[in-house]
Amino acid sequence: MQTVRDKSDYHRQTSERMERHFALPDWSAREKLTLACRMLAADGHDSGLAGQLSARAEKPGAYYMLRFGLGLDEATPENLLLVDDDLNVLDGDGMPNPSNRFHLWIYRAKPRVNSIMHTHPPYVSALSMIGVPLAVAHMDTTLFYDDCAWLPHWPGTPIGDEEGRIISEAIGDRRAILLAHHGQLAACATIEEAAVLSLFIERAARLQLMAMSAGKIQAIDPQLAKEAHDYRLKERAIGATFYYYARRALRQDPACLGRGRGLTRAAE
Amino acid sequence: MQTVRDKSDYHRQTSERMERHFALPDWSAREKLTLACRMLAADGHDSGLAGQLSARAEKPGAYYMLRFGLGLDEATPENLLLVDDDLNVLDGDGMPNPSNRFHLWIYRAKPRVNSIMHTHPPYVSALSMIGVPLAVAHMDTTLFYDDCAWLPHWPGTPIGDEEGRIISEAIGDRRAILLAHHGQLAACATIEEAAVLSLFIERAARLQLMAMSAGKIQAIDPQLAKEAHDYRLKERAIGATFYYYARRALRQDPACLGRGRGLTRAAE
Amino acid sequence: MQTVRDKSDYHRQTSERMERHFALPDWSAREKLTLACRMLAADGHDSGLAGQLSARAEKPGAYYMLRFGLGLDEATPENLLLVDDDLNVLDGDGMPNPSNRFHLWIYRAKPRVNSIMHTHPPYVSALSMIGVPLAVAHMDTTLFYDDCAWLPHWPGTPIGDEEGRIISEAIGDRRAILLAHHGQLAACATIEEAAVLSLFIERAARLQLMAMSAGKIQAIDPQLAKEAHDYRLKERAIGATFYYYARRALRQDPACLGRGRGLTRAAE
Amino acid sequence: MQTVRDKSDYHRQTSERMERHFALPDWSAREKLTLACRMLAADGHDSGLAGQLSARAEKPGAYYMLRFGLGLDEATPENLLLVDDDLNVLDGDGMPNPSNRFHLWIYRAKPRVNSIMHTHPPYVSALSMIGVPLAVAHMDTTLFYDDCAWLPHWPGTPIGDEEGRIISEAIGDRRAILLAHHGQLAACATIEEAAVLSLFIERAARLQLMAMSAGKIQAIDPQLAKEAHDYRLKERAIGATFYYYARRALRQDPACLGRGRGLTRAAE
Repeated sequence: MQTVRDKSDYHRQTSERMERHFALPDWSAREKLTLACRMLAADGHDSGLAGQLSARAEKPGAYYMLRFGLGLDEATPENLLLVDDDLNVLDGDGMPNPSNRFHLWIYRAKPRVNSIMHTHPPYVSALSMIGVPLAVAHMDTTLFYDDCAWLPHWPGTPIGDEEGRIISEAIGDRRAILLAHHGQLAACATIEEAAVLSLFIERAARLQLMAMSAGKIQAIDPQLAKEAHDYRLKERAIGATFYYYARRALRQDPACLGRGRGLTRAAE
Repeated sequence: MQTVRDKSDYHRQTSERMERHFALPDWSAREKLTLACRMLAADGHDSGLAGQLSARAEKPGAYYMLRFGLGLDEATPENLLLVDDDLNVLDGDGMPNPSNRFHLWIYRAKPRVNSIMHTHPPYVSALSMIGVPLAVAHMDTTLFYDDCAWLPHWPGTPIGDEEGRIISEAIGDRRAILLAHHGQLAACATIEEAAVLSLFIERAARLQLMAMSAGKIQAIDPQLAKEAHDYRLKERAIGATFYYYARRALRQDPACLGRGRGLTRAAE
Repeated sequence: MQTVRDKSDYHRQTSERMERHFALPDWSAREKLTLACRMLAADGHDSGLAGQLSARAEKPGAYYMLRFGLGLDEATPENLLLVDDDLNVLDGDGMPNPSNRFHLWIYRAKPRVNSIMHTHPPYVSALSMIGVPLAVAHMDTTLFYDDCAWLPHWPGTPIGDEEGRIISEAIGDRRAILLAHHGQLAACATIEEAAVLSLFIERAARLQLMAMSAGKIQAIDPQLAKEAHDYRLKERAIGATFYYYARRALRQDPACLGRGRGLTRAAE
Repeated sequence: MQTVRDKSDYHRQTSERMERHFALPDWSAREKLTLACRMLAADGHDSGLAGQLSARAEKPGAYYMLRFGLGLDEATPENLLLVDDDLNVLDGDGMPNPSNRFHLWIYRAKPRVNSIMHTHPPYVSALSMIGVPLAVAHMDTTLFYDDCAWLPHWPGTPIGDEEGRIISEAIGDRRAILLAHHGQLAACATIEEAAVLSLFIERAARLQLMAMSAGKIQAIDPQLAKEAHDYRLKERAIGATFYYYARRALRQDPACLGRGRGLTRAAE
């Protein structure tokens, strides 16, 4: 029988190897946000024109977001708008989604947040109707262990300031929030993290709904859940997952980043 | 902290911006009805040959509808029939769906109605079997708040006059109705509105079934629901949503409106 | 208000119009069976290599069936086998599925039956595990009203004679049967009818499972159900539905019937 | 009425015919593992980058496995790594998935095992959250009759040795195991068997969840279940099923085995 090593040795080894092997192409914020739109679209996050993804721009007080009227599957680096912190358009054609106003409240209140992704995907939406928070009971969803807030009431269509204040306060220091009768929101340090959390909260909601329909969800060990949470949120692990979904998006529409970008660089 | 403005300011600003930015291509009724068939087909509304979409034609007492025997995914502007108010064919080859007779009762009784879309999509169909009305408990389905009637019994295959009278009375002034053991019907002022409501009632039924399977649906605030209902039914908002789904249909089959129509105009 | 006519007038008018407008291409039994395989495959009826479709050949005591080892999505007129009533191959390469033995028992016992389609699609399979017969509670599934038998126990892998006798007796005069822990079987006068019933029993099972998960299924009026059953099983209605799904199969794989067959004829 | 033969005659005849008619192309271990990755990907087994497939290489103490960072849908014979029994790379670029460490424990402890496939597909994942073992109540899932172990607690992210020991002991002599809050694992004598079991355990979990949501699962006869289990696990039957799914994977991406491999050989 082989010697049993301490688990911390493997954690250290893994971190070193991921540092060496995993590196993202040098995509710009516009390109990453476009890829995020495309990967959420492919995962069924659209609900008509609902769903708003944004990111801080290089210029302080400015933000990239999708033009209102375009679906997540139609995003390109060129059709993203650059807006100021009162939703006035600084660069680009068209109008921003008026519901993006609450993004601004979160950006103002939380300097740690550089990207916000808010969608109404079907499983999250159904879960949001029955008055229970997100359950974390599967290894893959430990991303949300003690890191997903819950707003138990619906403050109405979020085009005003009041809703922005409510959501901003409710999320607190967490990376994600389940919004009753509404959807999900991830507010993260990077576009990569916000995209991966958005993909996995929908998966978590799907697992939860199926499990609750068939039986009673069993709890997992809090310490192991916390350890898995931290392991899965390593920057390189999130980056590798984002890069994988980006390649899928690029295979589906090789032109989505424009000519000469994307597949030549992203191809393995 | 930024000043908090009154929400009505944002509602006004949003309306003005939507008026300026959102305009549909100059599609004809035949073209819009074709696109509606295609978008409902892509959303899984077919049930074999069941499902009938119609619209008032320019000529009084005349209606466009799909030829019986064609699926929703096969509609083109050319294969739509023009029929009179006794289902006799005025223009086109083939026979109308005899079940469209109840459309005529609704058109006769309700001058406000210019388009009727009736389908048997799977989630609406399953919901229609368990004796409960549509639940409105998610922001995206507030389209149906106090605007979806419920016919709790099934009057049989609707090829006669009696069924037309029953359905026409049951819907009353509402835009939509859930028909027990049968399906859904949207009776609206425009093709755009009827199509968007048909897409979203299936989404609402899906959310409701998933939520009911896993737990107990929580109610939303009636006043906020009414406000969201009105916001989502603004003509420009409905138009923008229809246009988005139309672009998706055109990307799936660029030739569905015939050569030279569609993508050149609809492409972004 | 328009005069209300007797419903029987509309039934007569509909029958006459369908007779005039709906005619299938002159597909051979091999071609129809191929198209049936393809349409069931597209509807998710495969379960690995399980699922057997057969039809009486022109020659008495001979049957067409798919070669064992091929999936439903791989059928062509050329790779169907012609076998005798002891599963010996009369024409074609390969072996028949040994589980097709019970088809022979049904053909021998029931001269009315010219085609048998037996599959294990997911919703039928799940329903078959919980000890309840098929529920007929939606207009579109009235095809099965008083026409779907129920074998409440599983007699084991049906490669022997005993299983053939059990299934043959259990179906009796019905067109369809739900087989506990196993799947569905349609035994019909035509390939068209067997294919349409196979598609719709899976739909019926899906609706039933979703409805039972969310609530309690309500009964429909027996007389209206019987009337709808007969209306939907009119030869021309079944033919039009089969033809529609055949066109879909041909659009998905235009070469499935071989060069020069299929789309030229089936295209609209 | 035809004579009723003994069922053992049919079992013997079937075995002989399958021996004669079913033979796989001469794919290498790298090629088979690639095809297994692709068929599981097409069946929805991915969960981001989770999911590890491996097989013993010809060289003792060496194993093929997918490079960490690649999805199941990206596998090719060239991008598989060859690693030693401490996860050091012997051939190929990149790092192995650190979670593959527990594979090594199983290979060391069980000489019968030549391939391990471990995935977190959605239905298995949801089932794994509610504290019940896999139910075998459908003919197609008798593959797992008395052959699927159950680990009722979750030992944490399996990147260490302790988890390897726990999982290895829990599976015992069974071919498969359901891992609570985690996923499924098949540990088999051949790549073909591990792939087919992985496909069907997800199907079994799906059927179980749907059945439990709608009602109470009924038991099947143990002796018939055992007989069906043995019949379905015949080497030729497993091979034919693997070959079928391999053809589907090759039709989806004809280049996945590299130029000149795959379709020319696998095509019918």
